[in-house]
Amino acid sequence: MSISDQTAAALWRSSKDYGEDLRLSEKLLSALREATFDGVGISRPAFSPLETKAQDIVGEEARALGLAVSRDEAQNLVMTLEGADRQAPPILIGSHLDSVPQGGNFDGAAGVLAGLLILAGLKRAGIVPKRTLKAYGLRGEESSRFGKAYMGSLTLMGRIAAADLALKDADGVTLKDAMRQTGLPVDKIERGEKLLDPASVGAWLELHIEQGPLLIARKQPAGVVSGIRGNVRHKRVEGVGEAAHSGATPKELRKDAVFAAGDLMMRADRLWNDYLKQRRDLVVTFGVFGTDPKEHAIAKVPGFVSFSVDIRSQDKATLEAYHAAFKQLAQDVEQERGVAFRFDNRIDSAPATLDAGWTERLRQAAVVLGISDEPVPSGAGHDAAVFAQSGIPSAMVFVRNEHGSHNPHEAMDIDDFLAGVALIREAVVSFAG
Amino acid sequence: MSISDQTAAALWRSSKDYGEDLRLSEKLLSALREATFDGVGISRPAFSPLETKAQDIVGEEARALGLAVSRDEAQNLVMTLEGADRQAPPILIGSHLDSVPQGGNFDGAAGVLAGLLILAGLKRAGIVPKRTLKAYGLRGEESSRFGKAYMGSLTLMGRIAAADLALKDADGVTLKDAMRQTGLPVDKIERGEKLLDPASVGAWLELHIEQGPLLIARKQPAGVVSGIRGNVRHKRVEGVGEAAHSGATPKELRKDAVFAAGDLMMRADRLWNDYLKQRRDLVVTFGVFGTDPKEHAIAKVPGFVSFSVDIRSQDKATLEAYHAAFKQLAQDVEQERGVAFRFDNRIDSAPATLDAGWTERLRQAAVVLGISDEPVPSGAGHDAAVFAQSGIPSAMVFVRNEHGSHNPHEAMDIDDFLAGVALIREAVVSFAG
Repeated sequence: MSISDQTAAALWRSSKDYGEDLRLSEKLLSALREATFDGVGISRPAFSPLETKAQDIVGEEARALGLAVSRDEAQNLVMTLEGADRQAPPILIGSHLDSVPQGGNFDGAAGVLAGLLILAGLKRAGIVPKRTLKAYGLRGEESSRFGKAYMGSLTLMGRIAAADLALKDADGVTLKDAMRQTGLPVDKIERGEKLLDPASVGAWLELHIEQGPLLIARKQPAGVVSGIRGNVRHKRVEGVGEAAHSGATPKELRKDAVFAAGDLMMRADRLWNDYLKQRRDLVVTFGVFGTDPKEHAIAKVPGFVSFSVDIRSQDKATLEAYHAAFKQLAQDVEQERGVAFRFDNRIDSAPATLDAGWTERLRQAAVVLGISDEPVPSGAGHDAAVFAQSGIPSAMVFVRNEHGSHNPHEAMDIDDFLAGVALIREAVVSFAG
Repeated sequence: MSISDQTAAALWRSSKDYGEDLRLSEKLLSALREATFDGVGISRPAFSPLETKAQDIVGEEARALGLAVSRDEAQNLVMTLEGADRQAPPILIGSHLDSVPQGGNFDGAAGVLAGLLILAGLKRAGIVPKRTLKAYGLRGEESSRFGKAYMGSLTLMGRIAAADLALKDADGVTLKDAMRQTGLPVDKIERGEKLLDPASVGAWLELHIEQGPLLIARKQPAGVVSGIRGNVRHKRVEGVGEAAHSGATPKELRKDAVFAAGDLMMRADRLWNDYLKQRRDLVVTFGVFGTDPKEHAIAKVPGFVSFSVDIRSQDKATLEAYHAAFKQLAQDVEQERGVAFRFDNRIDSAPATLDAGWTERLRQAAVVLGISDEPVPSGAGHDAAVFAQSGIPSAMVFVRNEHGSHNPHEAMDIDDFLAGVALIREAVVSFAG
């Protein structure tokens, strides 16, 4: 049986998988929401018991559906449907199960469910694929806890640096301690050992909600991803001036850290506009910004401020140029305002090239299913980028989603999700069905 | 005898008062420190036994020096040197004896000692001034205990509101109970009765350490205060935009609250510069500023930011004009960046106009003493502002002081203090000597 035998347009709705996929998706999404709702949105912090709880919810369902369920050495959730050829490198389909605080339920989890639905559908139909398929629920993709993203995939690829392990969350817990408590082999990780051999993996296929507005603008339920933006980040830049009495200190004697940071930000804004005029791909964000609650006061010139900066582009040269220019702007402001800027170590994530073969297979699937095959760029980074950089043929599918991600208002239509699942299923079945 | 008969430059060091003033200041300052040191700094809470203890230390010394010592109805310390004309309204010279927790020894106490030194010097020389001089040690100037400042002077002027009496300290003690325990007539205070008739007071002269860095920058030991800045404040302005994924949302679709607030701040900064070019007195501070720790993330376009704004000027019209212009700037940014600014209620504190005659007399004294007569604005509020607002001719002298106030590191040189004392002494003696 091959899905591509069937005719196009809305095939996934008429397929015999549709009803069961819908039931299973709704059941699991509502169980995940219930277990990890924080009062405003969803919170499943990286390497936390709530992340483990989300794995358990998905894993228990997978087991009930007859799949083999385990955790790999990096404590990622792995659901397996064995293939006929045990020697052929398996195809991995998945995404991550952690979330930002007050985030949405679909970011990450949708891609994990996609993997599960595809394996469960084949299992239900009694189909043994040509090669083994594994659905993955990775840990630690979000940087919100430790300022470091893609930790689950980086761990597998032996690419967590010793300095990364020392990163701390808001409570002072290091990544190393959080990993150890979650059962990860921190000594191996510290030595940079690969926990998964890239050569042993046939492909990494990842479905994710689109975090931008393109598919909505194009009225396209799902789309094949063309490439992934990389980024350069500083988790914490400190502006150090001098606290003073707000009423008694004249302007020329102030070293106001907040005005200095605001000045730097506006210079960065003008530079960003210049880059866009040159048609260079770039987005810049100061997502975390603030004076110190332990010492700030309405009647005090702020002597201290800290902020994060996140610079993203599909083009490595643009990232480097903007980052260098930004540091120069900081020096200019230092000179003019008497406030010193202290940068922590930059955290890099390189732009990623997706696999041409799998991308083409997914675009063919789109044609078969009557969905536009026009590719969508990925503005956000994904675990797929990490796997791609390590030589694993990787590809991605985006699902249309309103209100962006990383907030509780993300809105993915379940039919759009099932269209995305159908794209991957079609590509996988045509390759290994 | 008139001090102004003598020649200028460092007169106070060569005066016959210098040696005795130095001895007395050092003796009393160290006695005050010893009695109220809290392990880190000085603690003399408003309407507390430690405040009373400080009064006792100063009062006992005054009595030993031959001055009449009493407490007024509001339990402020009063040291009196009777003048020849008992009908002429007396001149009051003083400040407050309470302090913030872990504060400095000079904030307030220096001004009380100034009054004592001037009266003691005249007494010692056998001089009977033309009119009565009173040195005051006020209570309750600091807001740190009850969240309300200038309580000693406000009580005298019948300006403590019923709601103020219900204010509680950290232990739940109300201002009313603390006042009653200290012996104040709370029923009269509650009815708003004046405990001191402003018309019966000739002048209020107050010496205080400078809480800003101007005198240090000007290398001036003491200076005459030009006026006391009022302020318009917003405790909390909220910038409300839209959270979005930092990598996937193009610039033109962002509603970034942090960039919007930074933009507003830089416009406010340029406007502030314009005002200064027009020689308008103004300081502007965003002392508390930040994204919401419960929802912000490095990889999230910040949809929310909040900040305080504190606008101060000696000129009411400048305060009003800048505040109105600032709100217009906020509207401009709203239009351009799609972020709404929500202002809480403004909190006002009116500027106080100091007495032209006494200010001029103090400036003349500065000229005589070889000190620059360039005035210094007072950024902080003082009891002098309360008396001035109630119609008592009031004036102030600031003494150079490093490291600001409200901390144990305030650093007043005793010679600078005695220069400030000499300024007031010269002005008082030239008027009533």
